[in-house]
Amino acid sequence: MREIHPIQPYPYTFGKYHEPIAHVTPGEIVALYTEDCFEGRVVSEQDLPSHVAGKYLNPQTGPIYVDGAEPGDTLLVHIHDVELTRDWAVSAQIPFFGGLTSTMLTRTLQDPLPEKVWIYRRQPDGRFAYSDKFSIAPRPFMGTIGTAPDLEALSALTPFAHGGNMDVPDVKAQNTVHLPVNVPGAYFSTGDCHVAQGEGEACGVALEISGKVTLSFDLIKNHPISWPRIESATEIMTVGSARPMEDAARIAYTELVLWLERELGFNRWDAYQLVSQAGKLYVGNMVDTYYSLVAKLSKEFLEK
Amino acid sequence: MREIHPIQPYPYTFGKYHEPIAHVTPGEIVALYTEDCFEGRVVSEQDLPSHVAGKYLNPQTGPIYVDGAEPGDTLLVHIHDVELTRDWAVSAQIPFFGGLTSTMLTRTLQDPLPEKVWIYRRQPDGRFAYSDKFSIAPRPFMGTIGTAPDLEALSALTPFAHGGNMDVPDVKAQNTVHLPVNVPGAYFSTGDCHVAQGEGEACGVALEISGKVTLSFDLIKNHPISWPRIESATEIMTVGSARPMEDAARIAYTELVLWLERELGFNRWDAYQLVSQAGKLYVGNMVDTYYSLVAKLSKEFLEK
Amino acid sequence: MREIHPIQPYPYTFGKYHEPIAHVTPGEIVALYTEDCFEGRVVSEQDLPSHVAGKYLNPQTGPIYVDGAEPGDTLLVHIHDVELTRDWAVSAQIPFFGGLTSTMLTRTLQDPLPEKVWIYRRQPDGRFAYSDKFSIAPRPFMGTIGTAPDLEALSALTPFAHGGNMDVPDVKAQNTVHLPVNVPGAYFSTGDCHVAQGEGEACGVALEISGKVTLSFDLIKNHPISWPRIESATEIMTVGSARPMEDAARIAYTELVLWLERELGFNRWDAYQLVSQAGKLYVGNMVDTYYSLVAKLSKEFLEK
Amino acid sequence: MREIHPIQPYPYTFGKYHEPIAHVTPGEIVALYTEDCFEGRVVSEQDLPSHVAGKYLNPQTGPIYVDGAEPGDTLLVHIHDVELTRDWAVSAQIPFFGGLTSTMLTRTLQDPLPEKVWIYRRQPDGRFAYSDKFSIAPRPFMGTIGTAPDLEALSALTPFAHGGNMDVPDVKAQNTVHLPVNVPGAYFSTGDCHVAQGEGEACGVALEISGKVTLSFDLIKNHPISWPRIESATEIMTVGSARPMEDAARIAYTELVLWLERELGFNRWDAYQLVSQAGKLYVGNMVDTYYSLVAKLSKEFLEK
Repeated sequence: MREIHPIQPYPYTFGKYHEPIAHVTPGEIVALYTEDCFEGRVVSEQDLPSHVAGKYLNPQTGPIYVDGAEPGDTLLVHIHDVELTRDWAVSAQIPFFGGLTSTMLTRTLQDPLPEKVWIYRRQPDGRFAYSDKFSIAPRPFMGTIGTAPDLEALSALTPFAHGGNMDVPDVKAQNTVHLPVNVPGAYFSTGDCHVAQGEGEACGVALEISGKVTLSFDLIKNHPISWPRIESATEIMTVGSARPMEDAARIAYTELVLWLERELGFNRWDAYQLVSQAGKLYVGNMVDTYYSLVAKLSKEFLEK
Repeated sequence: MREIHPIQPYPYTFGKYHEPIAHVTPGEIVALYTEDCFEGRVVSEQDLPSHVAGKYLNPQTGPIYVDGAEPGDTLLVHIHDVELTRDWAVSAQIPFFGGLTSTMLTRTLQDPLPEKVWIYRRQPDGRFAYSDKFSIAPRPFMGTIGTAPDLEALSALTPFAHGGNMDVPDVKAQNTVHLPVNVPGAYFSTGDCHVAQGEGEACGVALEISGKVTLSFDLIKNHPISWPRIESATEIMTVGSARPMEDAARIAYTELVLWLERELGFNRWDAYQLVSQAGKLYVGNMVDTYYSLVAKLSKEFLEK
Repeated sequence: MREIHPIQPYPYTFGKYHEPIAHVTPGEIVALYTEDCFEGRVVSEQDLPSHVAGKYLNPQTGPIYVDGAEPGDTLLVHIHDVELTRDWAVSAQIPFFGGLTSTMLTRTLQDPLPEKVWIYRRQPDGRFAYSDKFSIAPRPFMGTIGTAPDLEALSALTPFAHGGNMDVPDVKAQNTVHLPVNVPGAYFSTGDCHVAQGEGEACGVALEISGKVTLSFDLIKNHPISWPRIESATEIMTVGSARPMEDAARIAYTELVLWLERELGFNRWDAYQLVSQAGKLYVGNMVDTYYSLVAKLSKEFLEK
Repeated sequence: MREIHPIQPYPYTFGKYHEPIAHVTPGEIVALYTEDCFEGRVVSEQDLPSHVAGKYLNPQTGPIYVDGAEPGDTLLVHIHDVELTRDWAVSAQIPFFGGLTSTMLTRTLQDPLPEKVWIYRRQPDGRFAYSDKFSIAPRPFMGTIGTAPDLEALSALTPFAHGGNMDVPDVKAQNTVHLPVNVPGAYFSTGDCHVAQGEGEACGVALEISGKVTLSFDLIKNHPISWPRIESATEIMTVGSARPMEDAARIAYTELVLWLERELGFNRWDAYQLVSQAGKLYVGNMVDTYYSLVAKLSKEFLEK
């Protein structure tokens, strides 16, 4: 299996302005190695991110040119496995960043919360423990995954219609992520591996770690989608990223209703009714430049 | 067991301005009967709510005076059972109401969605079926539950710090709801029973039904809480209701962090860190006058 | 001229649950005296509101029963004069209250801003000076003005469809405020007089003062309005109060477009076009339980 | 005076990825010609934008490399004049775009508003008239003005910390716009000239026209600013662009307070107090990808 490593200078954006680091053919299984969000620079509780981190966060592995991908296609990303490539993870509380503090976008005149680092170490039972206080079971996933927008170069801290920094725990092994193709070759990138993360990623930093994600691509030709979708064995999902948060919820459920209407045989109002009674809606992140919400429907409702 | 029926004219607010319809002692188990949100007036697909419904929605069963409750106490509501008292339920799409339409608060110049009614009927297997198109497994809960604010009389369509129309599926049998006591006797009310509801209640109307909720009260004396809490066998939860939706998320997670800090032995930053990695955050409703979000933490993290 | 003084216990809500303190006939000119928002308890920089203020803020003068007012009418409030009844005013920075701090609705884990009081004294030139640092020219207006909602009792800190705590500087002498009548007699109240206030009322507290407002009422029978309107010699205005702030903007401009369409002879799309090119839109308050935005159009566009 | 014309293919982003079309030295007065937002393709009421407009809107004139500009400097843009280069202007109502409709970000299931075009023609008195229905006095300004972000390429429809599509009527002749310099040479661009526009730009399209803006640059070396500022003869202003709209308001007023504190001799709390009583806050746009709000303070308060 081909292995693809990130190449310095890393891209910190999703966009078409970086040269691809690899070409991959649909169907080929590849392993992508990813740096953690701090490029591995925060290794102890004394390493405050404001001192040791670089100017940019979330280095990406990519862009990868997917052969045959054309604007208007859907890129399917089959995630075969997400493996953690070290035995410790890092989280942090960063000034004016996170969900329970004022930020650079939600400005106030208050002082920031104290800057702090948490180091988690893998235990014999596989859990990641913060000292002897608490430990977290691994549920690894990729925080960032996306394609290039057609026009813009968007920060790797931003989730939007192209995917990006969605911080959605369902971007995990055995699931398939659907992404819009906006430029020839799609310019796929991923990174920001998380051992685990709570819904909302309240403090803005998960259990950050370097990783290895094994995946393969497929294309649905001439099948444009507006926002990312995720498919698991049992559920279909849509992801909306916007502010205020209700706009992310509106996008996620509207996309789910339209998916049911246009591709799965429902009339629009029955689809709206069905997701109203059986849908799920959780917060992926409440901290990024746009909030990401995930709407879900069990596949049981699709079997007729 | 004492049975309490709603009394006309029903209250359509949470507040201290209605006379109590019953006095209940902590520990006593009582059964409360509730009308559906339309007072049972919508019985077929031809009964459009804009024609047949009354001026107000969500008639309440209450207020109930809880003996001994004083401002500053916490009222615990142990929900023993939620039973459905008929074999059909109703949902609807109402003009300028719901999550995927402009509304009276999110105004636009567009036309409304068409008004429509869905009737669901209980099947031999217990599921509620809409014609032969789809059926929903019952997961009954109470859409509204709350106490009187100290000063205001708030519409029974509004969720806020006192509880109210939270539309949170975890308000169900076997769970305990914690509510602030703001006035002597608490003035507890409940209603708006749902056979089931998706997270977010996208169209704004669940599977509405009349119900019977069996519950008992307890008081934690001199223990003020700011927002509702819910406790299940396995999780602790907080509910925030606000607009924009991120403010509801901030309230829910802040209340969860402070609960961990002030009552459960965590320091504040470890609590924030823990919920960031292990918390859950789902949307109860995205349609009411305030949105309700539920933050959760597994009790496994509380066992030391 | 009849004088009406506030009566203790003051109402701190807009609602129909308080007994009227006076009956007034349309056309009669009356003078209403109002307490400041702190009931005059903050008189020096040492009087921190958290120590000396009462439990509730914004005591109202009212409710006033307007003879002949029926639900579905519009109440016109002609403001003849707003006079200041003392020579000093008070402002303050209150913990977790204001526009540039986290609040009880926009929660964070940060510390509050320091609590502080500013005392302003009237100078010989009429301006109100804070020590020798800066002085403010008086532009007096009423922070709260409204009628009773039909069902709810809403805090005097809340602006909404009934008016209330809009904190809109155009509620001033020579202007006419249009309010919906929701209950027989309208139950009009006013209070919270301000010497002056910046747009947005950034810190949440204006130059608070006791006042005397001279006004008369008129009724437009069978003319329901959804939200408050204001008319000056040169402009028509609508006020929307909601969260997030864009919802307040949407309400204000939608009401202005519909006013032009339904009462002033425009077709809907030309009205939308006209306010897009000639409308004004400023922030009344960015601090209350709902934000208030004011949309305006010059009357020059109404003269044909 | 040197004239600079836009060069095809026009840039539709603010970013460093386009080659500069000119180099300009601080102090030099240059005239920039700009295309209208539709590139002049909408010339009659039959030219619906969805049919005749290109894929992208808001073509920019630029980027212009400002000699000597380095990251951390402030770029001062002195606007000497904004002239209109034709005698007609165009506005439009575009499906799912604007302030009083659902949009691609505020999604609903409703139908769009009808697509429509308004053509305005200059009259002998200088006003721009829409048929015989109404006419608008010219108050010309530039809708877009900005520098390159350091990392991203942002759509010319987006306003943010770099400036961009702020749609703020104070970007007009005789005023000075302050912009952050994020990359060597600043990469300044402007475009989207408006004959006039209401506050909020409610329908999303102003009186769009081609223009000629005469300007000169200055640099404040080693003086980083976070967000754009504007200075007129009588006022200082700050512009915040964000969603929800209250975040734009928070940014604008926070920047104004910090400007007063750090550069104009106020202590922080007096500055907050002063803008609370004397500041102005209006909506530039309520329709773009981020809303832009402008906070102002009269220079009278700066004279000591």
